[in-house]
Amino acid sequence: MTLLAVGSIAFDDLETPAGRHEHLLGGSATYFSLSASNFCPIQLVAVVGEDFSSEEESILQGRSINLDGVIHKPGKCFHWKGSYGTDLNEAQTIQTNLNVFADFVPVLPEHYKNSQYLFLGNIDPRLQLEVVKQMSARPKWIALDTMNYWIEGSLTALKKVLLEIDILLINETEAKSLTGEKNIVRAAKTITSMGPKTVVVKRGEYGALLVTPNICIPFPAIPMETVIDPTGAGDTFAGGFLGFLASQGNLEEASLRKAMIIGTVMASFTIENFGTEKIANATNQDINERMKQFSHLLGINGI
Amino acid sequence: MTLLAVGSIAFDDLETPAGRHEHLLGGSATYFSLSASNFCPIQLVAVVGEDFSSEEESILQGRSINLDGVIHKPGKCFHWKGSYGTDLNEAQTIQTNLNVFADFVPVLPEHYKNSQYLFLGNIDPRLQLEVVKQMSARPKWIALDTMNYWIEGSLTALKKVLLEIDILLINETEAKSLTGEKNIVRAAKTITSMGPKTVVVKRGEYGALLVTPNICIPFPAIPMETVIDPTGAGDTFAGGFLGFLASQGNLEEASLRKAMIIGTVMASFTIENFGTEKIANATNQDINERMKQFSHLLGINGI
Repeated sequence: MTLLAVGSIAFDDLETPAGRHEHLLGGSATYFSLSASNFCPIQLVAVVGEDFSSEEESILQGRSINLDGVIHKPGKCFHWKGSYGTDLNEAQTIQTNLNVFADFVPVLPEHYKNSQYLFLGNIDPRLQLEVVKQMSARPKWIALDTMNYWIEGSLTALKKVLLEIDILLINETEAKSLTGEKNIVRAAKTITSMGPKTVVVKRGEYGALLVTPNICIPFPAIPMETVIDPTGAGDTFAGGFLGFLASQGNLEEASLRKAMIIGTVMASFTIENFGTEKIANATNQDINERMKQFSHLLGINGI
Repeated sequence: MTLLAVGSIAFDDLETPAGRHEHLLGGSATYFSLSASNFCPIQLVAVVGEDFSSEEESILQGRSINLDGVIHKPGKCFHWKGSYGTDLNEAQTIQTNLNVFADFVPVLPEHYKNSQYLFLGNIDPRLQLEVVKQMSARPKWIALDTMNYWIEGSLTALKKVLLEIDILLINETEAKSLTGEKNIVRAAKTITSMGPKTVVVKRGEYGALLVTPNICIPFPAIPMETVIDPTGAGDTFAGGFLGFLASQGNLEEASLRKAMIIGTVMASFTIENFGTEKIANATNQDINERMKQFSHLLGINGI
């Protein structure tokens, strides 16, 4: 069983009220893989530049992440510079340099094309569709992440790829923007008739909603006294959620519920320190302990 | 066992995306009592004007709400005119006429002074303290609601009354404003050292946090496809939460947890229609059914 993940590997310069760090390994695919690989072997498709050194590679190595699909190109890695104010809920982008990511066209290695599960990270929906076409067989499920940039600028292409997928991860304002619905429950329900039958609405520090045509279940986030850097929390959530689902091999309600809790727990590690520091070093024991604490906190049995 | 509640009875003119209604019975004490009286007998202290007719009185009558403490004064009832935009999270006040509420000084009837439980609704903290002093014995617990207006304008008096109470209900921005803490968990924890050992942080459609010196438990709200009018949701929550706690006679964690669920369920009725329409007509069966559905949704057993 493998989960193929397509997305970005980047270097981030970050400023939060807790401090300032430069040249941190980041990118959606990085956070996703570090999180998901705790539950399921990952096949990673991304592009990096010449500044991606063995030091960064070592963060991804030594765990169940296959890097054959990570292409090395002349030039520099995707670079993002952002800052957070005191509420930490929304990042201000100061600078984006796409660099080698600018003309990234995902090409799947032959041995990736039979992956049973596929996660299309937040890239151009046309490229997301191309990846689907490269698979030799339809995966058991396909999950997708997107953002306002594509909803506003590439809606037709996005709607086309939505028809091909099973699970959409999307944040609250994006879900409203995609559907024109002001009520988040109606927005998510509407999306379940646009292709994906499972929708996860991410609400930052307020948690997430799990929505299918039949259910709408709210999950709170773990209340954290210390949030150092929220960068990558959504991608880390997606990694825990989808990595666990892939390990279960089904999308039954019980699996989806547990996957939501696991995604929440994984995200809580990421925000505790800058960049990938915490999620890259969380042990199985750390994860299991926090799972137990959080389930106990929620009063949920049998997790 | 009785729960003494002090607060406002008002007439509201409301505009939401669902429509417009004038002269609706409202006010914090109204919503609170209609909700709490499902769980515990209420003794109500408030003031009304000559426009408070038998029609409005009948909404409060015929249930476990003692109205001996409701004083009738010449003049008009407190009047609030507000509107909500499409996000429904925050009301815009268009007009406030305090009317008879302007010089409201709560005077407890003799047979109220031994009430075991006391809820001080959102009024001047100096008056809240006066009410505490009028009690012949210290209630088993005292709960209090407040708002930014008092935090900004009467902080010294508010801090003084906080020292006398056990439970504070406060919304998220108010908790941050009261403590100067940007992180909501730290803000709530700080409040537990300012007097109240139990703090409920209200987060609107995102639910609420239950915080004591030892715990911080997040509770999501019920995802609602249709929200007609959010007015009174917080007071309705407080009514369900405190009414149930009074019926249990203790502040143990299990009681507090169930009270949070009950508060959430009660609030979900209020927002389904304008004014008190839904909460005034919710039957025991309606309440029990929604409790069951919500507990099932959350995956919580034994509620």
